[in-house]
Amino acid sequence: MTLAEEVLGGSRRALARAITAVENQAASAPEVLAALFSHTGHAHLLGVTGAPGTGKSSLVNQLALDARKAGKTVAVLAVDPTSPFTGGAILGDRIRMRELAGDSGVFIRSMATRGSLGGLARATADVVKVLDAAGFDYIMIETVGAGQSEVDIARHAQTTIVVEAPGMGDDVQAIKAGILEIADILVVNKADDPRAETTVRALRAMLDLAHPGDAHAVSHHGMLMRVVLNGQDGAPTEANAWRVPVMTTNALSGEGVPEVLTQVVNHRQHLRDTGEMARREMARIINEVDAALRDRLMADLLDRIPNSELETMVARIARRELAPQQAVSVLVAAYSPIT
Amino acid sequence: MTLAEEVLGGSRRALARAITAVENQAASAPEVLAALFSHTGHAHLLGVTGAPGTGKSSLVNQLALDARKAGKTVAVLAVDPTSPFTGGAILGDRIRMRELAGDSGVFIRSMATRGSLGGLARATADVVKVLDAAGFDYIMIETVGAGQSEVDIARHAQTTIVVEAPGMGDDVQAIKAGILEIADILVVNKADDPRAETTVRALRAMLDLAHPGDAHAVSHHGMLMRVVLNGQDGAPTEANAWRVPVMTTNALSGEGVPEVLTQVVNHRQHLRDTGEMARREMARIINEVDAALRDRLMADLLDRIPNSELETMVARIARRELAPQQAVSVLVAAYSPIT
Repeated sequence: MTLAEEVLGGSRRALARAITAVENQAASAPEVLAALFSHTGHAHLLGVTGAPGTGKSSLVNQLALDARKAGKTVAVLAVDPTSPFTGGAILGDRIRMRELAGDSGVFIRSMATRGSLGGLARATADVVKVLDAAGFDYIMIETVGAGQSEVDIARHAQTTIVVEAPGMGDDVQAIKAGILEIADILVVNKADDPRAETTVRALRAMLDLAHPGDAHAVSHHGMLMRVVLNGQDGAPTEANAWRVPVMTTNALSGEGVPEVLTQVVNHRQHLRDTGEMARREMARIINEVDAALRDRLMADLLDRIPNSELETMVARIARRELAPQQAVSVLVAAYSPIT
Repeated sequence: MTLAEEVLGGSRRALARAITAVENQAASAPEVLAALFSHTGHAHLLGVTGAPGTGKSSLVNQLALDARKAGKTVAVLAVDPTSPFTGGAILGDRIRMRELAGDSGVFIRSMATRGSLGGLARATADVVKVLDAAGFDYIMIETVGAGQSEVDIARHAQTTIVVEAPGMGDDVQAIKAGILEIADILVVNKADDPRAETTVRALRAMLDLAHPGDAHAVSHHGMLMRVVLNGQDGAPTEANAWRVPVMTTNALSGEGVPEVLTQVVNHRQHLRDTGEMARREMARIINEVDAALRDRLMADLLDRIPNSELETMVARIARRELAPQQAVSVLVAAYSPIT
């Protein structure tokens, strides 16, 4: 049996090995992904993001527990774009998951960056495919809401929950605007905090200023996207826009969490009813093919150029003898038969 | 006279036209850039970033005034990655620049995003080249510190100033970690606020946790970078690391601003003395050539593939009949002679 067949057969050990292979871009990874790809497309991909201290990990725990009670299987992927500034892991101890341990309907995995945030987003997309093929009903992707990389990772999700803690100030709102853009559901956790109500009101006020669909429209700037969609990004219209709910939870007691799961189900249905599910899927595929094509063309070209020539070229640019665009023309003319 | 020659001759009108051409990627842009490129490399590129409300625009004003007093010419490039969430401009009215208006040693320009943040970073790099060739001593690039796009833009700078306002809380620190990584000089503005001293102490404490050079090491993940540098990113060692100063200013009164400019000069000297200037320049060139090569190869390939074939391919992937990597192999084999 191949590794892919074992994964499809339900082996948890094979699943762990397949994920490791994909995460490390091992030689076997393309074959595994190709074999699993036709079995993907069934899971609901749920992104959960929020700043450190918002309690998003506890919320993911509770969501997983509630989904299990409803008879669904759950994979949790905790993505940690380790800050080069702190040099440490942010997501913390996975021991918190002990309530879920020993349940074969749950699979938990952490991923960390390996020097490249762009690489992390791609690796996450591939690991999600493996989990999807393995048959999980929900794949919960947990990220620390701290930058563009989280936004990129969240784009792989079908429903994105942004978790906030009570008591955020006006200046923080501005910083977080980029994160709010991607929210399908907003959750103010630690609802027992007296400032929770103010935060809910502030978030509702911010949402009233938002333009539905804008965030997704902006993201589609790949060259392939422009060709295939003829510049039409097909952003949702006002009429079929999803109204982002602002909800409160207490992730430690579990209060409010079943209601969030209900909204996740509602949002999935909304995506299907409006055709938005297919639209996002199409955009995801185009972006993925665009990036993979660029990588492939670049790798093929670099294979043909001697390192010494690249070094000479860069040195000449540094001496201002040659403009970067001229260097590109020279390299393409000399080493790529497409001109 | 060509447009480039007029720019080199000192015409402000030609400069404005050249920038517009480059910003809009007009047909004339590659020629203008190629003609100007050999005249670049003299300006000191100063990035100034900070969240809305920190007063970074006023600080840029004062820095420009002080630089003029020292006999230097200054170009200010205000980059506004307009949030799709608010839909509005963040940088506000450029009327604030009136103290500088009418001074021919100063040139002020705003840039806004046009649907693509990646595109904005590249356009900024090109506009900086035009300003550099036009002979300005300082090019100050002002960005709103709110995400990865600012980090990308700041990487074009040689010295990056991160501006903070007094009174930031612990949760904000975590969010801002990504921005702090890029700081060569930290400025707490509004020094008359009683909370300024606490903020200075908090920033110093955060800096003590930092690993010098990490941020720059992480950024170098291009394929071309790996080839040319053989995986060595040449990050600075502890011995020649720059110690990030935390300074206080009152940008409205101008207090503390000359000292910041002195540190900018010190940092420039440090970059030269340690060879870090050449290293950053090399990394910048490699990243630029890498991105331009990918764009060129992709555009050449897409020119050869009929749109209908791309659409069919994407539809087949959506139906799970074909994996994205298989689609890439098929397209490259059929349309690129490099295999």
